[in-house]
Amino acid sequence: MAVYTDISDEDLAALLATYDIGEALVFKGIAEGVQNSNFLLETTTGRFILTVYEERVNAAELPYFLGLMHWLAARGFPSATPIMDRSGAMLTQVKGKPCTIVNFLAGLSVRRPGAAHCRQLGDGLAWLHQAADGYEGYRFNDLGQSCWAGMFAPLKAEAEGLKPGLSAVIEGDLAAFQARWPKDLPNGVIHADLFPDNVFFRNGQFAAAIDFYFACNDILAYDLAVCLNAWCFEPDGSFNITHARAMIAGYQARRPLSAEERKALPLLAWGAAMRFFLTRLKDWGSTPEGALVRPHDPLEYERKLAVHRSAQDGGGLMLFGDQPA
Amino acid sequence: MAVYTDISDEDLAALLATYDIGEALVFKGIAEGVQNSNFLLETTTGRFILTVYEERVNAAELPYFLGLMHWLAARGFPSATPIMDRSGAMLTQVKGKPCTIVNFLAGLSVRRPGAAHCRQLGDGLAWLHQAADGYEGYRFNDLGQSCWAGMFAPLKAEAEGLKPGLSAVIEGDLAAFQARWPKDLPNGVIHADLFPDNVFFRNGQFAAAIDFYFACNDILAYDLAVCLNAWCFEPDGSFNITHARAMIAGYQARRPLSAEERKALPLLAWGAAMRFFLTRLKDWGSTPEGALVRPHDPLEYERKLAVHRSAQDGGGLMLFGDQPA
Repeated sequence: MAVYTDISDEDLAALLATYDIGEALVFKGIAEGVQNSNFLLETTTGRFILTVYEERVNAAELPYFLGLMHWLAARGFPSATPIMDRSGAMLTQVKGKPCTIVNFLAGLSVRRPGAAHCRQLGDGLAWLHQAADGYEGYRFNDLGQSCWAGMFAPLKAEAEGLKPGLSAVIEGDLAAFQARWPKDLPNGVIHADLFPDNVFFRNGQFAAAIDFYFACNDILAYDLAVCLNAWCFEPDGSFNITHARAMIAGYQARRPLSAEERKALPLLAWGAAMRFFLTRLKDWGSTPEGALVRPHDPLEYERKLAVHRSAQDGGGLMLFGDQPA
Repeated sequence: MAVYTDISDEDLAALLATYDIGEALVFKGIAEGVQNSNFLLETTTGRFILTVYEERVNAAELPYFLGLMHWLAARGFPSATPIMDRSGAMLTQVKGKPCTIVNFLAGLSVRRPGAAHCRQLGDGLAWLHQAADGYEGYRFNDLGQSCWAGMFAPLKAEAEGLKPGLSAVIEGDLAAFQARWPKDLPNGVIHADLFPDNVFFRNGQFAAAIDFYFACNDILAYDLAVCLNAWCFEPDGSFNITHARAMIAGYQARRPLSAEERKALPLLAWGAAMRFFLTRLKDWGSTPEGALVRPHDPLEYERKLAVHRSAQDGGGLMLFGDQPA
């Protein structure tokens, strides 16, 4: 949550001279995004967000993300549309860094989603999956199941430092995923990071999804599993099955899950917890003592892993009613 | 440049329930302010800024600042107006911290002001002084001339560390101010920190002044002296007399300076450089090695001090033409 690039009025005027969106009236850095800098930009023709991509971003992947946002918005899905400059480019440069200008989206994120929000989110996620259908870009999920063992290998000591004995438990999980991860479920473009702060609501309705910079091609139901973890756990670590069922119902109202997808969902949710546990564990270990910004606590996802692990023994999370899926 | 207070959608809804400004449509932390957190807030009735005052702010002084902003806006000066809540209060609380909601002001700050900007700024500053006339609040300038010797006393070693021999030079300056500081110049409310990032322009015109949290009662011409230092030095350290004369001309078009004010202006500018040198020296010394945010370099103002010091020997800065004032 910071602004890493300093853009003067002259830098901005030079950038806007390459667009057909008028002159700047308001320009303010906003506290959104962790791998890029974002600015609220109001011009004589409307409101926009200028995103400047910082060092951690792989610039070669930006065309996939921007092309997807353009594709989705063109199909009526409420995501930000990249604005083309006079040459027709969605990706340009400011102060030597890649940047894009997208239209501004109104709406508020919710901090503590209720069942109605979860249902709306499920519906919005299915909408995203359907709207993205046909997008020709392809991006391998480099944080997907096939990568987790390799991600964990250098982090074993870190896991033990967090909780003695944890390393062997994680190894067991990884072996289970390797043996049981589904191969034939419907694939497509997934958001892969649709946490509450990446979703805007308006009057209680799903209003927009933002931050497509983890989007990739993977199992569609895995995206729903990411959301179950991100939206349906209570602060005390318990899993709110009412919220989960509301989300799944919202999803299925637009895109019904197959029997295979329903059956796999508890396993996919367990795996989705592993993905966020691993990246948080890595960020945790690489942050110096006393740093101003503490990364997310990996133990939050260690607890979610434990919930899913024990649910597997009981036959699943009861996501679809009183009986295991 | 940061957001220090985390405000959820529920915190915001509870706050807005005490106002008559509608419901939130947009809420984003913005990278403005160093002693407070600022949020862009759009509601069903308009656009606002929510300011949350952080620990460094002396809450007892807030009524002076908010009362001044209200007074200025009521007299047509383009500063943000604090919005009253349903009880008529301009100052309220969110998450246990004092806060205020003000109307939103459009406009852009300039990074490298030209002569036309300086003229506009001079005009805007005189406007501010005239609009503030009659405001009954009083706040002693605790960063004014009578305080500088006390501010410097604990910083002598710091000054020597910056530049050997500097401590004695500063002591000489302080003695000169003590002997020569004017006692009878027109007093009033001054902004005291009207740097380019606190001024918005629109179509090249002065459009707004923000950040009144150093405002106080002091010599009016001293405020102009602060602006001469903040707006009229080139990046190479030279003083741009063309810009300075444009600023003074803009000021005098609205509020002509007396012969005594003109005569005192070079000394006031020297003193204004001391004020910012001292606070920067203090912030510089108290910032730990390796901190993410480096404070402003005190040497910038040490160089400005030197320009003003040598100009005194030559009879002043030639601010009013080819002859000393």
